[in-house]
Amino acid sequence: MIHSARIELETRGHAEPHDLTEAVARHVRESKLRSGTVTLFCPSSTSALTTIEFESGALSDFRRLFDELAAPGRDYAHEQRWHDGNGHSHVRAALLGPSLVIPFVDGRLTLGTWQQILFLDFDNKARRREIVVQIAGE
Amino acid sequence: MIHSARIELETRGHAEPHDLTEAVARHVRESKLRSGTVTLFCPSSTSALTTIEFESGALSDFRRLFDELAAPGRDYAHEQRWHDGNGHSHVRAALLGPSLVIPFVDGRLTLGTWQQILFLDFDNKARRREIVVQIAGE
Amino acid sequence: MIHSARIELETRGHAEPHDLTEAVARHVRESKLRSGTVTLFCPSSTSALTTIEFESGALSDFRRLFDELAAPGRDYAHEQRWHDGNGHSHVRAALLGPSLVIPFVDGRLTLGTWQQILFLDFDNKARRREIVVQIAGE
Repeated sequence: MIHSARIELETRGHAEPHDLTEAVARHVRESKLRSGTVTLFCPSSTSALTTIEFESGALSDFRRLFDELAAPGRDYAHEQRWHDGNGHSHVRAALLGPSLVIPFVDGRLTLGTWQQILFLDFDNKARRREIVVQIAGE
Repeated sequence: MIHSARIELETRGHAEPHDLTEAVARHVRESKLRSGTVTLFCPSSTSALTTIEFESGALSDFRRLFDELAAPGRDYAHEQRWHDGNGHSHVRAALLGPSLVIPFVDGRLTLGTWQQILFLDFDNKARRREIVVQIAGE
Repeated sequence: MIHSARIELETRGHAEPHDLTEAVARHVRESKLRSGTVTLFCPSSTSALTTIEFESGALSDFRRLFDELAAPGRDYAHEQRWHDGNGHSHVRAALLGPSLVIPFVDGRLTLGTWQQILFLDFDNKARRREIVVQIAGE
């Protein structure tokens, strides 16, 4: 059985972190499926997903990494063509990746105790975002 | 239902980018499945997958990141043992990762408008590559 | 059909590498399924998964990358709050990512000849770890 849904978010960009854990757990519960996987996918080239301990220190450290790897103020070939100021956003999102797959067992996500689902909007402006949620199981 | 296929490519290496979007969409259409996930997998330790806006600027910026993270001209322990000149290729591929999972709904990939599937061959020579395509759905 | 299992490991941390290939292949064989995907997931925010050629040179090169991206000796906001000395572990694990999805066909993982499954424990102390193995197929 497959259940498809979307999570909608209003975001502000600039690597703003969002915790999707509760929303994803709710979709799994509502599917009534017992075992399977949830695939989360960002239908965007300037946002990405991973997991992290969602506390301000770890989030700040993780965002610093991206400031070092792909700083906003550098020259980007993307910006030379498109002038939208988000060349760094594309590099960051492609590196971190758009998909995350999490197994669930007995109707519950197999996340660790201190592990949450992190959506990062790397774009440089406020946006309305949708994350695809595909639940496959039995 | 599960459909397995392979996409074959002739590649030149050196982080050469390939857009797999059309080939993957065609496999999904041919499967006749309506909803599910496509799992793409590189059966190789010197190539990797992600998504990106497939335009020359963003691709160039993304490749620069890998030149900075794992430059070809550095010392690599892998090369000291194997002398095949692709120590940096292994580091890059392991970081970006071999698998990508994309949901499809109503027979269509849920990619964003400006988002394409990127296969990067990080090796240092021309190769024949296969990418595994596994479609699971209903 | 879905089979759920866990792989248990005793780890020492500090980016210690573990090759999970044989354990995962065994779970696939025992499932008796012919085609599908294995989803591996780290229920932890300080460990991660990818694939690599599991030889000492490539492993050493890959670990050097993380020493450069997120060195243990730097200041981390996570440590200022929690004083557990593993701020760098969180950054590394979130970057590499907790999930890995590998297709299998005819009961065999589609890994390349020189490609193994790598679990990296980035934490700063010995731990008992479990990796979730979810096999879906037919």
